[in-house]
Amino acid sequence: MAIKALTFDVFGTVVDWRTAVIQELRQFGAAKGVDADWAAFTDAWKTTYRPAMDKVNAGQITWINVDKIFRDRLDELLPQYGLADATEEERERLNLSWCRPIAWPDSVAGIRRLKSRYLVSTLSNGNFVWLVNITKHVGLPFDCVLTAENAKAYKPDPRIYRTAIEMLGLSPGEILMVACHNYDLRAAKEQGLSTAFLPRKEHGLEQTFDQEPEDNWDFSVNDLCELAAVLGC
Amino acid sequence: MAIKALTFDVFGTVVDWRTAVIQELRQFGAAKGVDADWAAFTDAWKTTYRPAMDKVNAGQITWINVDKIFRDRLDELLPQYGLADATEEERERLNLSWCRPIAWPDSVAGIRRLKSRYLVSTLSNGNFVWLVNITKHVGLPFDCVLTAENAKAYKPDPRIYRTAIEMLGLSPGEILMVACHNYDLRAAKEQGLSTAFLPRKEHGLEQTFDQEPEDNWDFSVNDLCELAAVLGC
Repeated sequence: MAIKALTFDVFGTVVDWRTAVIQELRQFGAAKGVDADWAAFTDAWKTTYRPAMDKVNAGQITWINVDKIFRDRLDELLPQYGLADATEEERERLNLSWCRPIAWPDSVAGIRRLKSRYLVSTLSNGNFVWLVNITKHVGLPFDCVLTAENAKAYKPDPRIYRTAIEMLGLSPGEILMVACHNYDLRAAKEQGLSTAFLPRKEHGLEQTFDQEPEDNWDFSVNDLCELAAVLGC
Repeated sequence: MAIKALTFDVFGTVVDWRTAVIQELRQFGAAKGVDADWAAFTDAWKTTYRPAMDKVNAGQITWINVDKIFRDRLDELLPQYGLADATEEERERLNLSWCRPIAWPDSVAGIRRLKSRYLVSTLSNGNFVWLVNITKHVGLPFDCVLTAENAKAYKPDPRIYRTAIEMLGLSPGEILMVACHNYDLRAAKEQGLSTAFLPRKEHGLEQTFDQEPEDNWDFSVNDLCELAAVLGC
């Protein structure tokens, strides 16, 4: 089946969130006279947001956006790093550091090439407006933004992929899910989407997981420019 | 209150749908050897789509997108114009003529300028993917697409404005609704949005209604480049 649209995971697949968040924490710490392992802070902040999303998907708590999930976790972590006196305004600004990530070197060029022939959309677990702000901040030329907020369910819940299928008005196989996370592609494939894997070092240079395709995905490439070339753009 | 985002009505406000649809009908008729008043066909097609939207808003029928509403009306009109033998493929292509409108001369430049300082989004009654395709076809540099489909309710139903407020994560007054339709601004203002009016001749050069602001809107301009200038872009 011919691909007509590409939906991209964003955190990790399109942008390097970790380097940017570590940098903002380091600057904030320096201004406060605090030195710490900001990479560990960042990893603790990111990796522990999954349980809250799982509770939403299971219906154990009503819908909350990731900005709230991240903010709650930030408030837990700050005292552990000697930053209990951070003001409300400082906390809000730190929380929005997730909206100021760095593009991987191939992301803007790759998506621009893909856009010339296909509809290109986000399909992220972030707030709708976070993703809009990330695309503006980074200069990502997406045609539209779709996120978990459109479905009120988080990846890998089937509802987010089904919402994308419905809103794009396409057959599932005409949509190519692009991600550096095998779990995301597994869930997309279960809903009939086509799949493209690429490896990223979003968790740092020592990252060993998600460096290889763990299934027979439709495409497996090294970066988004290679994907553009493979898809004739 | 400071404006942070602009939401644009699209059909009429940003694009000239009528000239494009008339042209596509004329070409289709010529290929079939049929000559007719294609402007009258187009006007009958557009103006009669309101009742179906009102039924959706009133809960009398379940949610349907405008592509279905337009298609049903097209199927009624074709026999009246000697085109009963149009094939399924031809009807689908004609129905998608709404996705191939013409930009008003100031639209692309005006939105590009406004985008430099504000978040710029659609807020249209069209299908989500119709609006995505229109922005691609015309080259409109919107940051994101929001439509009635996000709210499962049509303008002027309050739910569509409330959905925009929620998804953009802003206070109502921080959002500026931009439209050439006084009814749209009236409904937006009732939900607390800021309002900007501009006149268009979307129904043809003889159009006399909606040429003046009918209320004390926050802004009243001649076109989108003037709006950009007024807003400091």
